[in-house]
Amino acid sequence: MKQACQIAADILERLRSHRPLILCLTNSVVQNFTANLLLAVGGVPVMLHHEEETEDLLHTCANGLLINVGTLSTAQATQMQRAVHSAARAGIPWVLDPVAVGLLRFRTRVCEELLSTPPAMIRGNASEIMALAGVDAATCRGPESEAASTEALEAASILARRTSTCVLVTGETDYMTDGTTTYSCANGHELMTRVTGMGCAMGALAAACVAVADTPLHAAIATAAIMGTCGEIAVAGAPRPGSLVPAMLDELDAITPEKLLQRARLAKL
Amino acid sequence: MKQACQIAADILERLRSHRPLILCLTNSVVQNFTANLLLAVGGVPVMLHHEEETEDLLHTCANGLLINVGTLSTAQATQMQRAVHSAARAGIPWVLDPVAVGLLRFRTRVCEELLSTPPAMIRGNASEIMALAGVDAATCRGPESEAASTEALEAASILARRTSTCVLVTGETDYMTDGTTTYSCANGHELMTRVTGMGCAMGALAAACVAVADTPLHAAIATAAIMGTCGEIAVAGAPRPGSLVPAMLDELDAITPEKLLQRARLAKL
Amino acid sequence: MKQACQIAADILERLRSHRPLILCLTNSVVQNFTANLLLAVGGVPVMLHHEEETEDLLHTCANGLLINVGTLSTAQATQMQRAVHSAARAGIPWVLDPVAVGLLRFRTRVCEELLSTPPAMIRGNASEIMALAGVDAATCRGPESEAASTEALEAASILARRTSTCVLVTGETDYMTDGTTTYSCANGHELMTRVTGMGCAMGALAAACVAVADTPLHAAIATAAIMGTCGEIAVAGAPRPGSLVPAMLDELDAITPEKLLQRARLAKL
Repeated sequence: MKQACQIAADILERLRSHRPLILCLTNSVVQNFTANLLLAVGGVPVMLHHEEETEDLLHTCANGLLINVGTLSTAQATQMQRAVHSAARAGIPWVLDPVAVGLLRFRTRVCEELLSTPPAMIRGNASEIMALAGVDAATCRGPESEAASTEALEAASILARRTSTCVLVTGETDYMTDGTTTYSCANGHELMTRVTGMGCAMGALAAACVAVADTPLHAAIATAAIMGTCGEIAVAGAPRPGSLVPAMLDELDAITPEKLLQRARLAKL
Repeated sequence: MKQACQIAADILERLRSHRPLILCLTNSVVQNFTANLLLAVGGVPVMLHHEEETEDLLHTCANGLLINVGTLSTAQATQMQRAVHSAARAGIPWVLDPVAVGLLRFRTRVCEELLSTPPAMIRGNASEIMALAGVDAATCRGPESEAASTEALEAASILARRTSTCVLVTGETDYMTDGTTTYSCANGHELMTRVTGMGCAMGALAAACVAVADTPLHAAIATAAIMGTCGEIAVAGAPRPGSLVPAMLDELDAITPEKLLQRARLAKL
Repeated sequence: MKQACQIAADILERLRSHRPLILCLTNSVVQNFTANLLLAVGGVPVMLHHEEETEDLLHTCANGLLINVGTLSTAQATQMQRAVHSAARAGIPWVLDPVAVGLLRFRTRVCEELLSTPPAMIRGNASEIMALAGVDAATCRGPESEAASTEALEAASILARRTSTCVLVTGETDYMTDGTTTYSCANGHELMTRVTGMGCAMGALAAACVAVADTPLHAAIATAAIMGTCGEIAVAGAPRPGSLVPAMLDELDAITPEKLLQRARLAKL
């Protein structure tokens, strides 16, 4: 779909020219890959553990905020609550990546509390989106999704309308909805699920796109298109999970708006 | 040794078909590599920092537990104690990786306390196994072993019998013993010691193998054979430490039971 | 400059023969890359989170200490204070990497307190060095430097004299000064700034060089020459940020004193 592809291409250009600074409060497994992914595509990553520093950064320099609850601690939950409030006061959009929500009680409570401050976007797999929407889909495969993303489409719409946010459901096909308008993205490759943090880093990219996009839905379109397109190009040259890591980062650096226009398989539903 | 190789090959097949979910309470340096290694070989890694979440996961979804004390904090020690107790109640096997035990007093105390709940396997280098067995071998090279693994063989047998566990001593030659029966594995390459977390990730693989094997000794045989075989194949194509990281993960994805049968150099002592 | 190149080459040889053990109290994003970089070039990395273990290691085995405040927490600040005091008592040199100092108040206070125990070296970008010297250059690009390193040269001399330490200012050209004598290093490549932790890992290399060098200024010369030379060789073969990571580690393993003598572009100012 030409119009959606153009949106994605424009946002990619803005990432490179604006270089948004994204505060990533994320899990301990994926911090390095997340930082390298943002640097490769054009953002500036910052990770912090101290509450006062978090607030200082949000009130001075940050352009976006990612909250990823993958390895939540009590202290980090408090840091995240304060960060979300500071972001709201500072007018900085935030993205929630509710890893394994619905499966583990502590993070489920924390996510519900965090959502009282509306994020610009929620990025999750089908199970996570269904759990947040109140459809029971708790999975025992940890951060993996067992529910197909199509099944979560209805849940995503419900969640988007209830929280007034944009929802990006990632899976074999990605879906992006603001509760009214829905797009799909058919790019990507199954091998990407064999690299830890590919989805988590996608949440960070979403926060970077939100920081430069006209609307969260546009940001979600760009996020899915950029990750999926770079992923499938990278897999073509690096068909094993170890070499996919550097190949993916290389492609996020190499991708051009023109290539995105040619290869993104976006559709309006 | 054909029988031992067949054991390793069978466990590799089970990793791919069962995809055991392994809760890894491990050090902060190696989390990403550990997660990618488990994903590459066929497991599902989960890392958590919150005690309640740890217990939730162990009582619902986890198939195995790794405890690696490499960067222990007071809070993590408490989390580990509770995790080991939960695992015991839930009937989930756990593996101890006692990094630098005997050298640093806090972790030495913590390891001793943890061992009051018997693990399925202890994986360490010669110095660590000797220290746990009460043979003085504290080393000043941090996580590296200065004692040859052969020297630790006697210590391993003592430790295995005293704790009723299986001991995997890694080094130039790996040794696996349950205190009665002992095997060796001659695969692997010295360059693997120049990549951080190669041994730690081996502990996570051990936990995955334990989760699908008939006995901990079988799991230890498979762990040594898979790591050593993949390592030497990877080094042949990537003879420097930086490119060894993706090459190792690629090989853990590519390795087949047939290749393992051909190349594993296992022997019964 | 032949004499400075010889200093760098000698220190590289000593890294390989002495294998200094470096305790790295560093940020959570770069621990893995830092450990792999030290292992590749010839050091032995240790990361710890527990205060008593930190002191144990400093009083038994450590040859050097890196303090990097990139993701400081209250607990880590206390650990660092005690570590610096222990290092001073044990006669172990330490290196400060004051990431984003001047921009975030908590770490600014912590760095000032830490500096009451003089480090052997401070490694920072221009903004950080200017902030520490009291020249206002707080930057909103997080760990990136917006001030050119030449601008920071005067600030570096002031800081070096005031704290009786050696200062290494990294940027397009690196500058090393003890407040009296100043060298420059023109090696390196812009792409290195697109990999997270390249500067932080350089701080760890600095701590390793300090541990084997005759003077901190010699260590700074070697640090800049080794990183810059390896970086530009690596970029020549891997001109994208993802593949630069393994290529950089490979080159740190492959670099010889002879190659360093040929390629290091060092000058006395």
